[in-house]
Amino acid sequence: MFNKILVANRGEIAVRIIRACRELGIATVAVYSEADKDALHMQLADEAICIGPAKATDSYLNMQSILSAAVVTKAQAIHPGFGFLSENSIFATMCQECNITFIGPKAETIDQMGNKANARTLMQAANVPVIPGSDGFITDAKDAEELAEKLGYPVMLKAAAGGGGKGIRKVANADELSPAFNSASSEAKAAFGDDRMYLEKIIEHARHIEVQILGDHFGHVIHLGERDCSLQRNNQKVIEESPSVAISEEQRQLLGETAVRAAKYVNYQNAGTIEFLLDQDGKFYFMEMNTRIQVEHPVTEMATGIDIVKEQLKIASGLPLEIQQEEVTITGHTIECRINAENPAFHFAPSPGKIDYLFLPSGGLGLRVDSAVFAGYEIPPYYDAMIAKIITKGENRAEAIAKMKRALGELVIDGIITNQYFQEDLLADQRFVEGAYDTSFLQDIFLDEWEQQQTN
Amino acid sequence: MFNKILVANRGEIAVRIIRACRELGIATVAVYSEADKDALHMQLADEAICIGPAKATDSYLNMQSILSAAVVTKAQAIHPGFGFLSENSIFATMCQECNITFIGPKAETIDQMGNKANARTLMQAANVPVIPGSDGFITDAKDAEELAEKLGYPVMLKAAAGGGGKGIRKVANADELSPAFNSASSEAKAAFGDDRMYLEKIIEHARHIEVQILGDHFGHVIHLGERDCSLQRNNQKVIEESPSVAISEEQRQLLGETAVRAAKYVNYQNAGTIEFLLDQDGKFYFMEMNTRIQVEHPVTEMATGIDIVKEQLKIASGLPLEIQQEEVTITGHTIECRINAENPAFHFAPSPGKIDYLFLPSGGLGLRVDSAVFAGYEIPPYYDAMIAKIITKGENRAEAIAKMKRALGELVIDGIITNQYFQEDLLADQRFVEGAYDTSFLQDIFLDEWEQQQTN
Repeated sequence: MFNKILVANRGEIAVRIIRACRELGIATVAVYSEADKDALHMQLADEAICIGPAKATDSYLNMQSILSAAVVTKAQAIHPGFGFLSENSIFATMCQECNITFIGPKAETIDQMGNKANARTLMQAANVPVIPGSDGFITDAKDAEELAEKLGYPVMLKAAAGGGGKGIRKVANADELSPAFNSASSEAKAAFGDDRMYLEKIIEHARHIEVQILGDHFGHVIHLGERDCSLQRNNQKVIEESPSVAISEEQRQLLGETAVRAAKYVNYQNAGTIEFLLDQDGKFYFMEMNTRIQVEHPVTEMATGIDIVKEQLKIASGLPLEIQQEEVTITGHTIECRINAENPAFHFAPSPGKIDYLFLPSGGLGLRVDSAVFAGYEIPPYYDAMIAKIITKGENRAEAIAKMKRALGELVIDGIITNQYFQEDLLADQRFVEGAYDTSFLQDIFLDEWEQQQTN
Repeated sequence: MFNKILVANRGEIAVRIIRACRELGIATVAVYSEADKDALHMQLADEAICIGPAKATDSYLNMQSILSAAVVTKAQAIHPGFGFLSENSIFATMCQECNITFIGPKAETIDQMGNKANARTLMQAANVPVIPGSDGFITDAKDAEELAEKLGYPVMLKAAAGGGGKGIRKVANADELSPAFNSASSEAKAAFGDDRMYLEKIIEHARHIEVQILGDHFGHVIHLGERDCSLQRNNQKVIEESPSVAISEEQRQLLGETAVRAAKYVNYQNAGTIEFLLDQDGKFYFMEMNTRIQVEHPVTEMATGIDIVKEQLKIASGLPLEIQQEEVTITGHTIECRINAENPAFHFAPSPGKIDYLFLPSGGLGLRVDSAVFAGYEIPPYYDAMIAKIITKGENRAEAIAKMKRALGELVIDGIITNQYFQEDLLADQRFVEGAYDTSFLQDIFLDEWEQQQTN
């Protein structure tokens, strides 16, 4: 096992990783930007190195600075967390060249799965159902038009190198296609230096169901069940839960097996997530793979009792994954609510600032709060708005929801505006209570109703 | 199920019960003394009623005030928590007479098991091994001397109605017996209005191992495994864990079966704990039964996944206990550290006062903090010093300890002195790490060494 690692991230995921290391007896090096000089991750780590100014491109995305920090502190490995450099194969390669372990899959795997058109082709070869669409890249609007006609509108145009909502266009009819293609590919060219596109049919009223997998360096791959992340706003997950109420035991089994097959096909190592869309007929389609730890990993940890971050560290250090598939059992029901420093009443605009008073809910069985905030902490305006995750587990879904309502009812974050009351309203919605929601529910239905209620 | 209950307690157990009620949709009435007008339990409850001045005998022990509060607020039941009126059969009877459910066993059971000489006799009849000692009461020092001679010194003289360390004397030899008997029985007369005594052989180098049981109103009784509570100072538990490293699987089975037999013999209803001593030869002896929820109940909750407070509420409302014995499984290893507002460097003197800054550890798998404190809270000097319980669960004992060290390392309680660093030192002791401790270790060995280290 490692003696010392560097955590190339900030916020709650950096804290989460540092805590896991502390429990494993691994020394930690935090890196921080000038805006994060009082951040919790920096206070909790054994060592902390400033890697640059507030702007992420100058600090948390600054590969040279981070690698220098690792070399100087003699860190044996780098955990990238999520976002930032976590899916950057160049960074993974640079780590390797510096003889530092990148805690994640091989650089080659990040490339294979990170290029989404590539990933589609690979998954088809692995006999994993993909969303009907193009085979490989589309470089011409004409080809896109022909294919869209065959598939039927609406369709989605996506940049092969895409991410973060860049280079993506929803196309409702043939008239819209050519302009959308041109603008999306230009945007992709600017953002990723790669204007190659691909096209997928839009699966309407789908559910977003993803499967957590773990693979070691010896070809042993298991899955840890699914998370239903259909509640999204602007392609950002808001509430996640496990198990999904939308699938049967047979579908669950099939999804798990499919995810393991997909991961094995690319010799996947470390933790990863395979995202599927489930259509209204109960068929599921590969959407993409995230080759890193995810924000919502605690849902699976609470559901299975398996510490995914610790498994990442063990796997990366070369230890075999000791968990067998048949030992993985999901018990009860787990829900996560993301708490963001944002103003739901003002289009969810970021709401950074100083936390004057803080009371985090605690106590009782099955409640967990992952966060990097503390009383007196000033949330900087430069980074993600997500500041805490509340996770509750109950014997059943009703108990998990009741516990989450209790927790949100206790939560006090004074000084900034958060989405706490928005989450409370969402939890109270009868359609949520019944589990009757799809990926469009929050954005297209609930949000409209909610905004109207606010103005009344 | 109840619609509304009154919580006749304060501090973290009152908060714990209120949180469970909130999750079950039960409205709560808090009672509070004048010293607790800003306490968390009072803030979290749906209603709150002041029941008298700070002094517990005028408020939390004031049966009339509490019953009046219940009647006025139309509470259907009273949860007594632990301490205060929780083992008071007169109060349980008064509740019954007011047509209010006492959440606990029948008044008659409290009497049977609360009188410790009685309990010995009953347990012998139930074929439960008891500590060698007197049959029934001893009213005369001569009889005590004769018996002690037969059993062999040292022996323990105890008041039959005893509790809280009153009316108890350790007797090392025949010369000490008569004076000890007289002073203890006088003390018992003064404290409990009852000078009846009993005598037990002292089991040296024993471990304190207790079994949590649950029984419903239909004769269904189960046990939830054991807790090892051998680490005590002044008869107060300091660290508790489950499972105990001192017993084999066969002993565990036998202990559980014995506890269930004991509970069934007295038709035990609701949650209770049967405390045993385990001697160095691996034999165990009934010590006493606590007919209420215990401080350390979260250890068993984390170990089994069963919410004991919710089960108490369900059972008291007349619902059958749905858990079968074979469904109860203890997974991993769970440890609890009690955080007290006390000064270890000054004979653990209470250290009440205002909490200026608070950071409670959180995050990751298997960490729970039950507490009633918050930043700005002023701990009153009138009540118990225990202000928080940190509970950690790991795959194994080493992981649970590592997690506890991590949690204690993060904990910040500014403004008052706590036993946090004492707990850290205890956790780091090699004898604790090896599980090689008995009931005398902390008091007779560790504490002496620790105090010497402090002065060095």
